[in-house]
Amino acid sequence: LAASPWSVRVQRLEGGRRQGVELIEVDTGLLRFDVLPTRGMGIWQAHCGGHRIGWRSPVQDGPVHPSLVPLEAWGGLGWLEGFDELFARCGLEWNGPPYRDGDRTYSLHGRIANIPAHDVALEFDDKPPYAITIEGIVDETRLFGAQLEMRSRISAVPGTTRLTVRDQITNRKSQPSGFQLLNHWNLGPPLLEQGSRLVAPVKLLCPRTADAAEVLDRFDIYEAPRPGAPELVYFFELWGTGARDETVVMLKNRASDLAVSLRFSLREQPRFIVWKNHAGTNDGYVTGLEPAVNYPNPRPYETSQGRVIPLAPGESYDVETTFEIHLGKDTVVAVEREIDALRRQGQPVIHPAPLEPYVVP
Amino acid sequence: LAASPWSVRVQRLEGGRRQGVELIEVDTGLLRFDVLPTRGMGIWQAHCGGHRIGWRSPVQDGPVHPSLVPLEAWGGLGWLEGFDELFARCGLEWNGPPYRDGDRTYSLHGRIANIPAHDVALEFDDKPPYAITIEGIVDETRLFGAQLEMRSRISAVPGTTRLTVRDQITNRKSQPSGFQLLNHWNLGPPLLEQGSRLVAPVKLLCPRTADAAEVLDRFDIYEAPRPGAPELVYFFELWGTGARDETVVMLKNRASDLAVSLRFSLREQPRFIVWKNHAGTNDGYVTGLEPAVNYPNPRPYETSQGRVIPLAPGESYDVETTFEIHLGKDTVVAVEREIDALRRQGQPVIHPAPLEPYVVP
Amino acid sequence: LAASPWSVRVQRLEGGRRQGVELIEVDTGLLRFDVLPTRGMGIWQAHCGGHRIGWRSPVQDGPVHPSLVPLEAWGGLGWLEGFDELFARCGLEWNGPPYRDGDRTYSLHGRIANIPAHDVALEFDDKPPYAITIEGIVDETRLFGAQLEMRSRISAVPGTTRLTVRDQITNRKSQPSGFQLLNHWNLGPPLLEQGSRLVAPVKLLCPRTADAAEVLDRFDIYEAPRPGAPELVYFFELWGTGARDETVVMLKNRASDLAVSLRFSLREQPRFIVWKNHAGTNDGYVTGLEPAVNYPNPRPYETSQGRVIPLAPGESYDVETTFEIHLGKDTVVAVEREIDALRRQGQPVIHPAPLEPYVVP
Repeated sequence: LAASPWSVRVQRLEGGRRQGVELIEVDTGLLRFDVLPTRGMGIWQAHCGGHRIGWRSPVQDGPVHPSLVPLEAWGGLGWLEGFDELFARCGLEWNGPPYRDGDRTYSLHGRIANIPAHDVALEFDDKPPYAITIEGIVDETRLFGAQLEMRSRISAVPGTTRLTVRDQITNRKSQPSGFQLLNHWNLGPPLLEQGSRLVAPVKLLCPRTADAAEVLDRFDIYEAPRPGAPELVYFFELWGTGARDETVVMLKNRASDLAVSLRFSLREQPRFIVWKNHAGTNDGYVTGLEPAVNYPNPRPYETSQGRVIPLAPGESYDVETTFEIHLGKDTVVAVEREIDALRRQGQPVIHPAPLEPYVVP
Repeated sequence: LAASPWSVRVQRLEGGRRQGVELIEVDTGLLRFDVLPTRGMGIWQAHCGGHRIGWRSPVQDGPVHPSLVPLEAWGGLGWLEGFDELFARCGLEWNGPPYRDGDRTYSLHGRIANIPAHDVALEFDDKPPYAITIEGIVDETRLFGAQLEMRSRISAVPGTTRLTVRDQITNRKSQPSGFQLLNHWNLGPPLLEQGSRLVAPVKLLCPRTADAAEVLDRFDIYEAPRPGAPELVYFFELWGTGARDETVVMLKNRASDLAVSLRFSLREQPRFIVWKNHAGTNDGYVTGLEPAVNYPNPRPYETSQGRVIPLAPGESYDVETTFEIHLGKDTVVAVEREIDALRRQGQPVIHPAPLEPYVVP
Repeated sequence: LAASPWSVRVQRLEGGRRQGVELIEVDTGLLRFDVLPTRGMGIWQAHCGGHRIGWRSPVQDGPVHPSLVPLEAWGGLGWLEGFDELFARCGLEWNGPPYRDGDRTYSLHGRIANIPAHDVALEFDDKPPYAITIEGIVDETRLFGAQLEMRSRISAVPGTTRLTVRDQITNRKSQPSGFQLLNHWNLGPPLLEQGSRLVAPVKLLCPRTADAAEVLDRFDIYEAPRPGAPELVYFFELWGTGARDETVVMLKNRASDLAVSLRFSLREQPRFIVWKNHAGTNDGYVTGLEPAVNYPNPRPYETSQGRVIPLAPGESYDVETTFEIHLGKDTVVAVEREIDALRRQGQPVIHPAPLEPYVVP
């Protein structure tokens, strides 16, 4: 068995809006993180090297049970009543800002994060590297609508500070269908602070709004919390390498001795989005690092841009993201070098102004 | 006590969207069926003679807890996120397609199927025929609105393949009120297949839409699953007999050796609707046999046609339906003969085109 | 310890729409009442001197779990599907009738009554008067929205017929915010009957609607239940006294031997509203006595009138109300004398017609 001590703990939470939420705590010995089957296999928070990795959401009493999240409320922004995770998926039928189509409201970031997983299973490999895996299936289905199934496997290896999310999305309909997926990784203090930096192999950069365009030259630097600061969003294409067109992005603290990286294949997730929310300390001071199959525009626009992934009946699509925490300057520098190597493929194209609408015209 | 072995099992379901749903499995020895108090006393599925009787809904992880069914979503079609039962009631304040009245959405098929029953009780008769009964009360009530109470009794006799649903709807308001009720019995494979047939003592037949009118001559024959096929709906009046104007309808398989019949009084349920959904195998290949007090049009239209049942303060209305499974050619033929006898009362009136709107004008 | 026998019982309710609701029954020896942490620290009902104090709501199967209350339904009146309490708070971001602002629905009476409390605690003082306290925290928060926290403490002293609700509302946002609060105390039979009377130190009285204006001279007298009677609402200012500008109002039965009083500071709650619902016995025959920080108009109107309480970041506002049951003529007369004394401060100003809109123009 694994040389490092590890553990898995399953709980059902009690009290308030978290009543009935199932939480599975995985501890690799170096990294501890909480999987939330009840919230669509999201990850609530992680702990590593004495740091809490995640963010301080205004939702203080979460994780919130999906039955108490009114997605259609607030003109389709009800998702925000339950949003407090380190990792929340946006999709599967659509994601992005709310929009209306006739009498239908397509609410912010879709439904997947608020659908409880079923057939949740724990797996422990009995051979090296002795991976621990939590599996769960989330069905985003209804009669006369999409029938998208997500089989999610979240794995970690004892003695590492790394976890991997592997989602397989399958079209269970007897007809062609399509899906969208944006992986919303959210980081606040202590990793996020004035002077924190995004390190990314940027191939293309485009601000989502005029606000974001105005401070485009500082897209990779973070400011101190500032109550009332507007959210800033940037859309990216990245450089990758190898057969799977692998890339890596990183958020590091000011001292460059604490960082989080995300690794993913640009074949699977060709888009990347950064959400900078320099809000007040209590108001959601956070940044989102978001590998995605699409940009978070209303689905009709994404469809027109060919960014909804088509799936034949029974067809599947795999998405894998590896999240790692880096402790100490040496490990942070090593990742920076890796990103520098990717950058050498070419100069970034930078659009000084928004290219795309972010509401339905 | 009953000569046949029988049993009743009560469970609370665990995991996914079914978390917390109460399920009562009744086994008569020949027929096993699952009552869902949590979903308004619906019936999830039945098993008989080695066959599963019910349908394969796109909702694969049901039965879904009502707290996770957003009725108002999808322009009022949210009911479809929880719809996977052999038997689901539509009502009580209204049923039919969603419509809006000012700022109010009247969502598809009303609320009753998503209101948990209270005061659920099991009864076992100690004298022949030793009936087993599940009782539950469902309140569709609110201040300044309807106060409709449904006392439902679902009974079965050991050693039979039959169950009876007796619903008593009472107006608990101190003012006159009204209700609608459509009993949605849903059947898929193996009973439903290419060549399955509806056998009914038709007095009047009217297609709901132009689609249905086009294939009117095949209203009683079922096609193979076909992805993307439109749903077809037919409205009926039936012939009955006796003091209670009893009628019977049947769905039989191609070989005529497996069938389901519904018996009901036309005094109680004067309308009958058939929903044919020749969709793909995974997309809800199913037919609905629907005895009802009204047609599933928006309530304002049904009111104009005198098809909302008025109830004085404290007044009740009883609705009883007997569902039976027929195994073997002989039992199927016997029911066909019975229906033939009813048919002899007159030629059916057949309307070649829709007579009624199915949306609010 | 306390000389009087007392008890506290905690239950989680089972069955129907109350499944999972936590109920804490406090018995002072003379007064028994049920606190509902799951329904925002409301109070379901009380028992005293052999009387049930509360009302008979059309919601017969409550208390209803918030996950089954669709606030946005019915054009924003969904709150009424869960409303059956002796005491329900309306707020905190807004209260009053539903209104729309762009694509957002601000539903009837806000969200606080349907948010489960967390960190619920029981406290028993070990020194006189040995108060029993139930504490709970209710968060009305979301990203990009209000972050209002209510710390509620409901206390009673053994051997009394009195309970005190102390709510502390805190702005947890790093930005200025505001809140509204209306305390909805609801009383039906046996206290409410033909000839019951409101006794209040009225400084100003204004009917909310033309209906209410028409019977203005009988604002303080109650009629028998009458199916279909319209609700009548009156807005008040009251006379108070002392450093905290304390006031008291009372509802007494016809015989003046059973009454309920509410005591509160006009500094904390400067408004008072009476809701008279002379409906049929089964339809919600009830009156609401409602101390409040604001009038129940749409928030934009209340903002224009300076009746939304501003809160700086981290700032708190305390609201305390004492509810007491009076058994026997002597105790009722004593409170009447107290109210008479307050009245001597001046003649009431009575507006013969509505002064304020009750819908958004």
